[in-house]
Amino acid sequence: MSHSIAQFFQSFSLPQLDLLLLVYLIAISTEAMSGALAAGRRNMDIFGVAVIAFVTALGGGTIRDVVLGNYPIGWTQHPEYVYLVILAGLATTVLARFMHHMKRSFLMLDAMGLVAFSLIGCDVALRFDYPVVVVIMAGMLTGISGGILRDVLCNQVPVVFRRELYASVSLFVCVLFLGLRSAGVDDGLNMLSCFVLGFGFRMLALRQSWRLPTFSYQQRWE
Amino acid sequence: MSHSIAQFFQSFSLPQLDLLLLVYLIAISTEAMSGALAAGRRNMDIFGVAVIAFVTALGGGTIRDVVLGNYPIGWTQHPEYVYLVILAGLATTVLARFMHHMKRSFLMLDAMGLVAFSLIGCDVALRFDYPVVVVIMAGMLTGISGGILRDVLCNQVPVVFRRELYASVSLFVCVLFLGLRSAGVDDGLNMLSCFVLGFGFRMLALRQSWRLPTFSYQQRWE
Amino acid sequence: MSHSIAQFFQSFSLPQLDLLLLVYLIAISTEAMSGALAAGRRNMDIFGVAVIAFVTALGGGTIRDVVLGNYPIGWTQHPEYVYLVILAGLATTVLARFMHHMKRSFLMLDAMGLVAFSLIGCDVALRFDYPVVVVIMAGMLTGISGGILRDVLCNQVPVVFRRELYASVSLFVCVLFLGLRSAGVDDGLNMLSCFVLGFGFRMLALRQSWRLPTFSYQQRWE
Repeated sequence: MSHSIAQFFQSFSLPQLDLLLLVYLIAISTEAMSGALAAGRRNMDIFGVAVIAFVTALGGGTIRDVVLGNYPIGWTQHPEYVYLVILAGLATTVLARFMHHMKRSFLMLDAMGLVAFSLIGCDVALRFDYPVVVVIMAGMLTGISGGILRDVLCNQVPVVFRRELYASVSLFVCVLFLGLRSAGVDDGLNMLSCFVLGFGFRMLALRQSWRLPTFSYQQRWE
Repeated sequence: MSHSIAQFFQSFSLPQLDLLLLVYLIAISTEAMSGALAAGRRNMDIFGVAVIAFVTALGGGTIRDVVLGNYPIGWTQHPEYVYLVILAGLATTVLARFMHHMKRSFLMLDAMGLVAFSLIGCDVALRFDYPVVVVIMAGMLTGISGGILRDVLCNQVPVVFRRELYASVSLFVCVLFLGLRSAGVDDGLNMLSCFVLGFGFRMLALRQSWRLPTFSYQQRWE
Repeated sequence: MSHSIAQFFQSFSLPQLDLLLLVYLIAISTEAMSGALAAGRRNMDIFGVAVIAFVTALGGGTIRDVVLGNYPIGWTQHPEYVYLVILAGLATTVLARFMHHMKRSFLMLDAMGLVAFSLIGCDVALRFDYPVVVVIMAGMLTGISGGILRDVLCNQVPVVFRRELYASVSLFVCVLFLGLRSAGVDDGLNMLSCFVLGFGFRMLALRQSWRLPTFSYQQRWE
């Protein structure tokens, strides 16, 4: 395992990686738990729980890698991530009864994960020669498409399209990161700023129930 | 922008490209608007509108490129397409109230787009050494899978599997294009024929409410 | 056609391929029929039937190849598979009225297909340098994700997450195959064991209505 973690370090062009790795591991575990809870709402069996946990945690990065042509896909080189997210999903079936006591902590971990996913997605795209809008979309794909896959597999309209500012936080983090980067800010300071401001933005949006304006259209003329 | 349009020209092996490019830009804008309306029917926020617009317009080409292994994926080299479809999607939230007056124009643009997407899809696959059935499927994937993704994300059974001849028009265009091509017909004349006949076929199917036979099966014995 | 079948033989590293190919062809036909029946339950037109049949039969292998980066994707080199699954799907619209008489045969073919898909998926991943958990996931992706795509396109929660042991059989077959392989067992004997035990396991699970424990979670606090 220490070997593949070393590979993981080398695969990043950013410093401060021990911290980012830690946050990443927390992020995929949190996403896996959120997937397991969604599977439980559909009364799935424990195999379904494991699949939805895996897809929610690692599906966003998979879609990003496929779109960017970034082979081999991240988790295929890190079996320990696969074990971690399946374990986190299965553990959730036992821990679920206590989870409503942890709502606040869970949302904080989820917000940290959203920032980490967005930064990692941008970082992967920066290794290629993609235009800036593609780099931003890579960050957002990593941040939000795992949750979209989860909702599609659970047969519901993705909550990310209706929830309190979530995707917007990912967009904000990606733009801030690229802006500070092109302004020559040191990578460590840049990432710290993204974490503090992105996390604060998401927490504030939750507390204030900020939402984007909604578009409603009921005519059927097509 | 003119630089990337030049790249776009070079990336095609067909002549008459200024016209095809124009039709393509109209096509992705029309698809983006159709995606935005579908998002509005699910009361999504404006972020959701932008995502569904993007996926409807450029998702079909993305799936085609992933299946063919055609990297880098088209829109990642054309940031202006990304901006265009997101703008078209967001503009739809303002223009929606007037759109039922434009039903006829909208369906005509959509039919033109369907033909353009099908031709472009075939053209991309022809650059590789794929069998003819894969070339046809690449054309149809480009033409219809954006709409399928839109419907899956909006949690409904894809209308393309039930609507008036839509996929059939795409199939007809792809087969006609490849047939005329192997008969040695000049590319410009070939594309013109495909447009006239494909567009006419679709318009006629709409006016006459032509549908394919339906298969209904209600037993549950599996 | 004989040429591409020869290619197919060469593309495998396992012996006993004439038999495996036969089982594979039966498997994709059976999957195509299962897709067509699902499309019929949604009253799709015959185009929709053909698409769902194709996706159910060949979609799992497509996802596996995309995730592994195994280009060109299998069916693009085998047009005869595409014709076969579309034909099987369309034939189902005629044969459907008789199919409830064949329930038992259908489930037996489906079980054989599940084992064949799992073995082929593992075999493809073994050609690359992937960790063992990725090899197992490649086998399971091939075995079950076609059915997941079918259910998503038909707008229902995938049955594989709730049905009698199905994915579990795929997991069992993959682990058994890799275990016997690393124990040095001859490939032919290995595959035979996987077929007998995997098929028996699935048939027994159906007869006894074995199910995995289910996880139900109804709180909505997120």
